[in-house]
Amino acid sequence: MASHDSDPEPRLYFEDLRVGQHFTTTVTHTVDEAQIKAFAAQFDPQPFHLDAEAGRATLFGGLVASGWHTAAITMRLILEGGPRLAGGTLGLGAELAWPKPVRPGDTLIVHGEIIDTTRSRTRPTRGRVRMRTETRNQLNELVQVCTSTIMIPCRSASSGA
Amino acid sequence: MASHDSDPEPRLYFEDLRVGQHFTTTVTHTVDEAQIKAFAAQFDPQPFHLDAEAGRATLFGGLVASGWHTAAITMRLILEGGPRLAGGTLGLGAELAWPKPVRPGDTLIVHGEIIDTTRSRTRPTRGRVRMRTETRNQLNELVQVCTSTIMIPCRSASSGA
Repeated sequence: MASHDSDPEPRLYFEDLRVGQHFTTTVTHTVDEAQIKAFAAQFDPQPFHLDAEAGRATLFGGLVASGWHTAAITMRLILEGGPRLAGGTLGLGAELAWPKPVRPGDTLIVHGEIIDTTRSRTRPTRGRVRMRTETRNQLNELVQVCTSTIMIPCRSASSGA
Repeated sequence: MASHDSDPEPRLYFEDLRVGQHFTTTVTHTVDEAQIKAFAAQFDPQPFHLDAEAGRATLFGGLVASGWHTAAITMRLILEGGPRLAGGTLGLGAELAWPKPVRPGDTLIVHGEIIDTTRSRTRPTRGRVRMRTETRNQLNELVQVCTSTIMIPCRSASSGA
């Protein structure tokens, strides 16, 4: 990647990651009504994501963010304030749960932990890392749990590239 | 929901859904470079999602959409051209895999199937449905598999509401 050489801090390769390593994003994101409605209008146009009044009549009791919006914000927080992985943060898949909705005014932060590392047997230049992240609001309530599988290059293979 | 009374077709309640029922969205969505870059700039600002030239140097070999973008487009397609569920399509969680990336010019369609239905024991007014969706491009290549858990009201409980 073009920006790699000028990175202020080194990027992490497969060999740098260990089960149990954890992080908290150095940045947070505050969600407002306009962001919730804009995302919903484009991707999840349901009454409880588009309009506070319509949301009050549902079990949410007000406007709430789409779960896909929460997932996207979580991705942004990890990229901006999480571990800097070599080759980027390249997801192969993810398991998501949304125990509570995100509401206007909520400030989100992400806590993450490496829960598995597996070097590829067929492609020794790559490994897979499983990361469990918790996205929490300003009351420390859990709004998303995500376990994702990320592909990451091995340092040993990359040095000669 | 305010719009319910004027719905042109009836919405589906828990009792209307059976394991094995399947659907193909009546609409498709064509992804272009501008959409991919706009989503990435907001939520997943990595070189291979932001710039075709930078993407060429990666294993993707070009610009590709964020997996979260693919997930969000899939949600939109299901809402616009999938089953019309009573109370909305209310996800509690999801398992995602992205076997192939989405590229500029790809036209996406979603095929879905009900794989499990469970009436709530603690809240008899609600049930849970698990739905497996495949998002495919114009070459019928699989770009996303998603198994989601959706909460849905029961007709028997709703009639008196």
